[in-house]
Amino acid sequence: MPTAGFLVIGNEILSGKVVDTNSPFLAKQLREIGVDLERILTIPDDIDIIAHEVRQMSHDYDHVVTSGGIGPTHDDVTMDGVAKAFDLPLELDVALCDRIEKATGDHFNESMRKMATLPRGALVQESGDLWFPLISVENVFILPGIPSLFEKKFESIREQLDGIPIVLRRVYVKAYESEIASHLNELLIEFEELMLGSYPRINEPDFRVLLTLESRDTGYLDRALESLLARLPDDSIHQVD
Amino acid sequence: MPTAGFLVIGNEILSGKVVDTNSPFLAKQLREIGVDLERILTIPDDIDIIAHEVRQMSHDYDHVVTSGGIGPTHDDVTMDGVAKAFDLPLELDVALCDRIEKATGDHFNESMRKMATLPRGALVQESGDLWFPLISVENVFILPGIPSLFEKKFESIREQLDGIPIVLRRVYVKAYESEIASHLNELLIEFEELMLGSYPRINEPDFRVLLTLESRDTGYLDRALESLLARLPDDSIHQVD
Repeated sequence: MPTAGFLVIGNEILSGKVVDTNSPFLAKQLREIGVDLERILTIPDDIDIIAHEVRQMSHDYDHVVTSGGIGPTHDDVTMDGVAKAFDLPLELDVALCDRIEKATGDHFNESMRKMATLPRGALVQESGDLWFPLISVENVFILPGIPSLFEKKFESIREQLDGIPIVLRRVYVKAYESEIASHLNELLIEFEELMLGSYPRINEPDFRVLLTLESRDTGYLDRALESLLARLPDDSIHQVD
Repeated sequence: MPTAGFLVIGNEILSGKVVDTNSPFLAKQLREIGVDLERILTIPDDIDIIAHEVRQMSHDYDHVVTSGGIGPTHDDVTMDGVAKAFDLPLELDVALCDRIEKATGDHFNESMRKMATLPRGALVQESGDLWFPLISVENVFILPGIPSLFEKKFESIREQLDGIPIVLRRVYVKAYESEIASHLNELLIEFEELMLGSYPRINEPDFRVLLTLESRDTGYLDRALESLLARLPDDSIHQVD
């Protein structure tokens, strides 16, 4: 299965000034496509740290997505970090610079050249109706941190990723998690490949545990669900969907 | 300054089924105390991955906080991972087991022994009015994933951390970020120690950039703010607070 890592770059997240909404968005999207997100890492705007983590994630996962640090100011050092990760020089992309100049008109100034300065060999692709293109280096997609732009830009990536979607079933259980733990363990002995989640809920009036059963094989999932329901006490099931 | 790392353990976050609210909560709290949160890492419920990352974070930061994976079910393997990180055996804490039995009464069963099975030498401390204590190993605080419990339990940690709070000033600027980028660069040459953030906002009617100025030294911060305001064009400042 294709795997992915997500690198969130931004002091504003670590200092609690901004809530990272890109991670939950990306996690849901990748799940829908069927790409396994294996790691979400938030780090400061620091060239060496970015370089180290980009290099590692690029090695460990099929796809890497980064968020943040590609604007015109002093604290936007993601391109520097990605360039360093792959030992590439940074170069002005003249076509991109012209494009930024056209898009920003009277507001264009020298600091925007920074936004057109990319690691040598970076891939510059059209990105839907956004004037700023989608930029990638090796298997690393470099996205902006602003959520509305991040989300729009993800559409261009989505088309380029192939996964096998995972099917999810949910069972809402009225018993305490500890009362059903042994049944779950037995289920996993019978269905070793089942992805089984067990999540206690303390503020729900109608159930105490949400179980999630997942698989890329629908038949396998159906059989596991049937086996689970047969194991649980009759009166303990609130709902299945 | 004291530093911290936060390790979020949970497939449910990576698969997009649950939104991680513990990270923004912890980031804000640590900022208030004045502890520098340097990394937030989300990983799956996997003993070896947990062990590796706990060992690394414990080495890299003064304090480590983990979230999730300490319940009674098969996918709760945080204690196993922490034990492995420090090469410690897992042992039943009889006093804790008795405590769990008293707190859960009729619902107590074998699977709850798992919740009382801790790495040898783990520190078990009272945690406010919560019946489940605060557990730590070396410099690693092991917290539950359920947000209401995580937040309550953090109170016990808060008392044990000493930081120097950071003071924050905000400047809301009507100009585009690219128009003020050079002024920000000059400011940072004059005030090298200033923590300066620049965040473009595209949906605000009254301003285009939020600047944040931060320092642990109030006098230094005041001088930097004065210098910034003198650099920016007169009509570009929407608000300062």
